[in-house]
This record gives sequence, structure tokens and C-alpha cells, in this order.
Amino acid sequence: MSLIVQKYGGSSVANIERIKSVAKRVAGYRKKGHKLVVVVSALGDTTDELLDLVYSITKEPSERELDMLLSTGEQVSVALLAIALHKLGFEAISFTGAQVGIITDATHTKARILKINADRINEELRKGKIVIVAGFQGITLNQDITTLGRGGSDLTAVALAQTLKADLCEIYTDVEGVFAADPRIVRKAKKIDQISYDEMLEMASLGAQVMQVRSVEMGKRFNIPIHVRSSFHKKEGTMIIKEAKSMEEVVVRGVTLNKNETKITICDVPDRPGIAAKIFKKIAETNVSVDMIVQNVSHTRITDISFTVVKSDAAKAVKITRRIASRIGAGEVIEDPDIARISIVGLGMKSHPGVAAKMFEILAKIKINIEMISTSEISISCIIQKKFAEKALKVIHDKFGVSKN
Amino acid sequence: MSLIVQKYGGSSVANIERIKSVAKRVAGYRKKGHKLVVVVSALGDTTDELLDLVYSITKEPSERELDMLLSTGEQVSVALLAIALHKLGFEAISFTGAQVGIITDATHTKARILKINADRINEELRKGKIVIVAGFQGITLNQDITTLGRGGSDLTAVALAQTLKADLCEIYTDVEGVFAADPRIVRKAKKIDQISYDEMLEMASLGAQVMQVRSVEMGKRFNIPIHVRSSFHKKEGTMIIKEAKSMEEVVVRGVTLNKNETKITICDVPDRPGIAAKIFKKIAETNVSVDMIVQNVSHTRITDISFTVVKSDAAKAVKITRRIASRIGAGEVIEDPDIARISIVGLGMKSHPGVAAKMFEILAKIKINIEMISTSEISISCIIQKKFAEKALKVIHDKFGVSKN
Repeated sequence: MSLIVQKYGGSSVANIERIKSVAKRVAGYRKKGHKLVVVVSALGDTTDELLDLVYSITKEPSERELDMLLSTGEQVSVALLAIALHKLGFEAISFTGAQVGIITDATHTKARILKINADRINEELRKGKIVIVAGFQGITLNQDITTLGRGGSDLTAVALAQTLKADLCEIYTDVEGVFAADPRIVRKAKKIDQISYDEMLEMASLGAQVMQVRSVEMGKRFNIPIHVRSSFHKKEGTMIIKEAKSMEEVVVRGVTLNKNETKITICDVPDRPGIAAKIFKKIAETNVSVDMIVQNVSHTRITDISFTVVKSDAAKAVKITRRIASRIGAGEVIEDPDIARISIVGLGMKSHPGVAAKMFEILAKIKINIEMISTSEISISCIIQKKFAEKALKVIHDKFGVSKN
Repeated sequence: MSLIVQKYGGSSVANIERIKSVAKRVAGYRKKGHKLVVVVSALGDTTDELLDLVYSITKEPSERELDMLLSTGEQVSVALLAIALHKLGFEAISFTGAQVGIITDATHTKARILKINADRINEELRKGKIVIVAGFQGITLNQDITTLGRGGSDLTAVALAQTLKADLCEIYTDVEGVFAADPRIVRKAKKIDQISYDEMLEMASLGAQVMQVRSVEMGKRFNIPIHVRSSFHKKEGTMIIKEAKSMEEVVVRGVTLNKNETKITICDVPDRPGIAAKIFKKIAETNVSVDMIVQNVSHTRITDISFTVVKSDAAKAVKITRRIASRIGAGEVIEDPDIARISIVGLGMKSHPGVAAKMFEILAKIKINIEMISTSEISISCIIQKKFAEKALKVIHDKFGVSKN
């Protein structure tokens, strides 16, 4: 008998039929004798429908009131799931984030969990009940309702797993797990059976969308095994754990693609100490976060500096960059939205030299020019032209033998 | 400058346009310098939509989970109203029943308010904010969300008015106020400007649907002036207060009609002491509440007993009555759903003899037979055949000169 925290996302509870099917799955675990805490997101489109109501009043709603409004979505789901479990003959009880003492700071719409007081949950578990908790939400010490931002329900689940000392945290979603590459592009890409927290973190921040960075970070910090799997069938998904098996032998765990960035280049920058600091400090002040930065060492007294930002920040970033360029006596500022970042991720890279060289070689062989390079201890990223993105993903996936892992 | 508690019902916040219009009205009061606490019901059809979801799972949902579910309706309304007030440039803050400490007992779906801890409301009022509170809901000491049953939002408003020592409680609805008779039947029926708590209580329990008995009772107990009025225009409505003006002169304040009852007659009941007690104790045990009871004193050893119950309880009541009848050796049990109760209400009756006689005479003159009679200190009710109901209402309204009050 284990204590399992399960989280069901919006697509898993999109309608009453799906809720009934989730209830059956939960009941199946209960029958096996497990203790269960189930975290649920809002029904399918609820959040969008509520936002439509708000936007018909104003484009800039108060974030406190937005949290008040949106948190109702999960409250509806948990009540319906409890009722569906009762109908199957199981004892279940639902709670809001506030009721189970998920205390957060007051950063509305993206609050951080400060602590969880799990007394009530433990009390109901002792009575043999299935405990259902509204994901994505908490409450401040001043009793204001907050929400946790993107991936908030995953975070609720992992945090509860930590507080309750659960044996396992299962994240149910609409995909089978984490794939070695996007299966919509690389058909033969395989689901990864086991992945380490670090690899998952790197993949998430490089574009894999299955799990948010925050939840994986919390899983890593408290060493909570996270099982990402589909609520649409019974197959095993991907286990995110501290040490994935055969870690040494596997060089590349996954390949990711991110087409959501724009490259900005400042030409003819005077090559003086402190000039890069000046540029990026100014950009940071506008709240634009810069991703990759490349500066070529120049033999002359001028150089080019390139960096990438997410597309939605591009216009803002170009505007401020042009202003800085003219102030420091640099040349033209060029914006290139037609780029893609292709990355390989794997703990094994640490002990396998030559991985970067192999990646560059693969791209060279298929005549794809590398515009920028960035490396971390367990990942290598290249910026290439967007039109080559899918081709590069397939070839790198195949040549590194990722599908054989 | 006064402290005013306003309550807006579901039809007053049926959609975003209506919410914006409520925001304008509230803002208008704030501009005049009043302190405002606004209680809001769920948007128009929200409650029915949520119930549809539940009933597609089960016909007998857990009442605790039902409260969890339905309380989201008001939470949506309060957030939207706060956002609409912000848009107009006013400071406003919304709260759930739990957040403002509306503590209830644990009788889910029809909880009773035990106490209200108004600290947070007072704090926000001091800051100059408009405080918006979700109606119809509270929380138990064990942190379980409850709802207050029919008319619950009115009750929230009156209870808050009492706790906050408000100067006035305004109940906004979709009718202009309380009428001397149903204006859909009696065209010339006048809106009542002032009515006493006792008269309003009597009218509410006899069929006038504007306000629920519980809220009027609380208003009476704490002597809170209640102004029932329309949110669709600016006209004054009906003031419910301790002493309505010219109380002595007005004999009949209003005439009500209730067609929602069924008459059940047990024929040939042996006329022995204790037999009525036996019958009605058995019926009470099935949770059917009996309204009027009439037993004719008989000269023989047998008698007929008639009583009325609400139509939804009729089948159950007839079933149990037949069983009792056969057990005590009584005769046939006759069910008559085609009846109506017509009642006159007025504090002035106390000091005006002959009011009942006048009512009977009016009905006799238009050849309407009276089947049952029941009187209280300030009301007289007659059961007549349903087909005469509208005619009786009109004639009694006119002959008692109610429209001249």
C-alpha cells in the first residue's frame, strides 16, 4: 500500500464523460489499497470562458480579482470528481487550495507556495477517504485567494507529494510521456522510460512542453519520483527520477526544437570593455529576458553581438536595442524571426567528449549553417535557419541513435 | 454618509451588460459618499448549468459537494463586479463567504448563519473600498463550504447589515417592490410603499414571492430597515420596517394567492379524542409539512378532516394518509389539486372587527364557495376552487380598497 498523489490536467477532465473515466481510474487504484490524493485542473475550456467574460469588461483586470475568478474553475472540477467517485461507491472529499492550507505569497497570478498545512488531508486519508484537491490555487496568510501560474496544478501535486511524503507523484496528461524528440515531427521518436530531473529540466527549458520547469525543480529538490503518463490509456509513461538507468551509456537522452525565438544582431559594436554589460543591463530593465548571447572575438576594433529573445518580446527588445546602438555608436540592428533552436540533452555528455563536435558535423553534412552555439554541462544548442528545423531534428535524432536508448 | 448593504439577485447580474449597469449604480452611491457593502448572487443561469453537470452524473449528489460546486457561482459574480468597478475608477475588493467569516452550521444546502466576523470588511471599508461579498454561502468552523438555501443571498445581506450596524439594507430584484396583489393578475394593484415586518412575513408565507421568510424574520429581529426595489430603474421600492405609516387606518395591506397546494380529505373519521394527533404525527414522520387543517365538529360519531400540503408532497401525503385511514377505520381519502388559497394580510385587522365576515360576504356575493378557512392575528385565508382564484383576487382587492392605501 502506497500513498500516491495523482494530478489530472484540463484535457483529462474536459467534460463529464472524461471526469467519470478519471473517477474509474482513481477507484481502480483505491481498490488496490492505495491511499490517494488527487489534484485536478479546471474543466477543458473553463478558464478561457471566464477570461472572455473579464475581457469584455477590461483588458487590464486586477490580478487579485482574476485569481478570485479563475480559482472557481478547479473548485467545480473537484466537486464533480468527488460526486463521480461517490456514484461509484467510493468515499471521497474535495477541497480548495485554501481549505487544505496551501499558503502562498501574495504574487497574484503567479504565486509561490510558502508552505502546506496538510492536517485536514491526513485526517481524511486516515478515515479511508480519497482526497481531491483543487490544483493551481492557494491562499495568502491574509486569506486572499491566489493562483500559481502556468503549470500550477503540476506544482500543487508535486508540493503535496513532498508535504505528505508520498511514494509517487503521477502527472496525467494527454500525451504518453516525454519523448526523445517531438513525435509529431520525428515519427519514430520513442517515449523515454526514465529520465533524470536534470535532463528533464534542460529539456523543459529548451522547448519540451510536457512539464513546467518549476514542478521538475521541486521534484528534484525533494527527490520525488514523478510519473508523467496519459489518462487516456493504461500504458506506463515516463519516470522522472534522480538517476535514470544506464545513464552512463546513454549520451543523448532527447532532442528538442524551439521555434519561438527571434535573433537580434547589433552590428559594428565598438569593442570596448563593459559595452556588453551596458547593452544587456538596459534590456533587462525593460523586463525582456534574453536567452542565448554570442559575441565574436574580433581582430578589428568592432564586433557583432547577437542574442535571442522570445518572439512576444521581440518588438520591445528591438526598439530598446536600436536606442542603445545609436547611443554607443554601433551600427545597424538586424532582427531575424526565422530561426530555430535545436538542442541535444543528456547527462552522459559529461563523460563523453566530442558530442558537440559530432552535432556540428551532422549539421554540416546536411549543409545546415550554424548561426549561434550555446552549451551547458548537459546540453548543446545550435541556432539554425527555421526552414531547416524539422530536417535537422530528424537527422540529429537518428544519427545520435536516440531511438535505441 | 451612511453605511448601506446592497444585494443584487441573479437577474440583476444575468450577464456582463447587467453587471456593468450594477457597477454604475454602486458607483453612483459611492460618489455620494456612502460606504458600501454589496452582496451578489450567481449570474443568471449559472446555478442551473452547474446542476445539469451534476445530474448527468447522479440524481443524488452529496450535499457537501453540491455546496462546494454551487458556491463557485457567486465567486464568479463578485470578481466580475469588482473588475467592473475598477474599470469605472473605483476601489473595490471581492470576498467569498469564507473570506469574510460568515460562519454557519454544517447543514449543507440550507445552513444557518451562526456568526459573522466582519474584521476584514471593516478594514477594507476604512480604506475607502467598496466591499463585494458572495451571497448565499458560508463556511463551517471545520472549513467546509456551505450554502444557505433559497433566498440565501438576501439572508447574507440582512445578516451583514446587522453585523456591520448598517443604516439600510437594499434588496435589488427584477420587480419594483412588494405589491398589494400580484400585478400580473390585478392590473391596478399598487406597489406598497411601506410595510411592517409582520405583514411582510405573513405575505411571504402566504405566497408573495418577493422575499423569503428567513430574511424578513432576521430584519424584524434586529430592526433593520429593508428596501426592496428594482435594479432596472431608479424608482423607490417597498420599505419593510417596524411600523408602517398610517398602520391603524389601513386594514388590509395586501392580498395573496397561492395555487401551489393540494387539499386532502379523510372522510368518515371516527370522532374519538386523539385521532387527529395520530394522523398528523404519522404524516409529520414522513417529513411532509401540513399547512391548513380543518375538522368539522360533528353531531354523529364520525367526521371529515381536511388539510393542505404543497403539491410536490401531495403523492407522498396521500399514500401515507390512505394507510392511516384504513388502520383507524376511516373512509375514503379524497385528493383535490384544483384549489387555491386566497389570503388578506394587514396589521389593522387586529383593531378592526368584522374583516373576516366582510371577506366571506364578498366571496358569497360572487358565488364562490369557501371550502376551508384559517385565520391568524393579522391574516385570513380561504381555500376556494382554483378556477375562481383570479376573480376572487381581483374582487377582494377592489372591495377592500387596497389600491387606495
